[in-house]
Amino acid sequence: MSEKPATRLYIESDLADGAVVGLSPDHAHFLRSVLRLEPGRWVTLFNGRDGEWSARIDGIGKGWASLAVGTRLREQSASPDVWLYFAPIKRARLDFLVQKATELGVGRIQPVVTQRTIVERVKGERLSANVIEASEQCERLDLPEIGDPMRLDKALADHPADRTLVACVEFGDARPVVEVVSTLPAGAPVTLLIGPEGGFTPEERTLLETRENVRFAGLGPRILRAETAGLAALTVWQALAGDWAEAPPKRY
Amino acid sequence: MSEKPATRLYIESDLADGAVVGLSPDHAHFLRSVLRLEPGRWVTLFNGRDGEWSARIDGIGKGWASLAVGTRLREQSASPDVWLYFAPIKRARLDFLVQKATELGVGRIQPVVTQRTIVERVKGERLSANVIEASEQCERLDLPEIGDPMRLDKALADHPADRTLVACVEFGDARPVVEVVSTLPAGAPVTLLIGPEGGFTPEERTLLETRENVRFAGLGPRILRAETAGLAALTVWQALAGDWAEAPPKRY
Repeated sequence: MSEKPATRLYIESDLADGAVVGLSPDHAHFLRSVLRLEPGRWVTLFNGRDGEWSARIDGIGKGWASLAVGTRLREQSASPDVWLYFAPIKRARLDFLVQKATELGVGRIQPVVTQRTIVERVKGERLSANVIEASEQCERLDLPEIGDPMRLDKALADHPADRTLVACVEFGDARPVVEVVSTLPAGAPVTLLIGPEGGFTPEERTLLETRENVRFAGLGPRILRAETAGLAALTVWQALAGDWAEAPPKRY
Repeated sequence: MSEKPATRLYIESDLADGAVVGLSPDHAHFLRSVLRLEPGRWVTLFNGRDGEWSARIDGIGKGWASLAVGTRLREQSASPDVWLYFAPIKRARLDFLVQKATELGVGRIQPVVTQRTIVERVKGERLSANVIEASEQCERLDLPEIGDPMRLDKALADHPADRTLVACVEFGDARPVVEVVSTLPAGAPVTLLIGPEGGFTPEERTLLETRENVRFAGLGPRILRAETAGLAALTVWQALAGDWAEAPPKRY
């Protein structure tokens, strides 16, 4: 095998020298019937724990595939410690947000129901599928965690007190997001909070303003849709405080 | 009228004190049958030239509406001078990119066909409709221009020589995008170039590398889809060099 295999799969099994891995029926079908891979072909595997490994297809059939793990291509490393809390939005936009937040290296995706949130349900399975596919394709070594939707007051109560919360808002003392991110403690884990498109209520605003370790960030003079705001905040944080100082992948 | 009207329309007619504006049948239908607005109700109008004005519905019927222009709410100002050149992508993702680039204040959207571009056609009308709707909703005072797709060599030949081109790439000397943006001349107009997902060919790379006034920027260690890359580059530029230092709109 001369270069890293193009096909990259997230699996749950352990990965180690000499291991043999059995794929799920879905994965087996994908390799066999969609990609038409045969024994002897190589794929890339990761599991969020053991790094990234090459693996050779030993056998493959209807609904099954057996892979012999080869060499470790990359050691395990964690995605940057940035969480995205956001008021749920409708399906297509939510799919985009989750997919792109994953590409942008988010560590945790937490739907937060506020008083002006229109959409309250979030289909966990669908989100998971999106997250896995996006993680496979963007070449990160782990999956973002996905929280079950919870109300704002509970989400805040459960939120670690020593973790900075950056609320992206259009009121009061919001400072430009670059200023807020630039003045965070170096290496500090952060949670980016995006409210519903109707905004936070005065009550919710007070809840945030009276909490320790909360900063208010503005995202410019135009109205942003919730998914745009979430991705923008994540981008600015990664670019300034996250891992975008690292060199891009050398693909060619 | 106590607060700015929620309904905001882009029109082509001149806007001035005492003017009377006739809406297009589509706009009239939207106000009458979708929003169910009646004479006496107010909307907001902009045309990219005269700023933003309130206007009162004088008469409205099937396929027509006549508005009396009221007061100017905001003076005309231009969106920041940032262009987005990108290799075309499939429809849903293209819609997403165009909509969000508009929210992020892009000045010009230029599809650029490269050797590894898969999608070559771009439906101009559809893009225009998306751009208008996004411009209305994000409260910008102008529309981004949309260029017809053109080949990379021609796009580069036509590109103003004194305008910096920031190519977002995964090769060679790409420096982190924050570093590139931070070292641009203050206030300089810029073009962000996003290549196709298969990347630029060696030939195209040479074309870029031998050109004056080109910088190469990296967007982190994960593979980004083209629309994610475009929006991320635009976000970083706006946040650091564009108009995100301005206060967010005071909506509440």
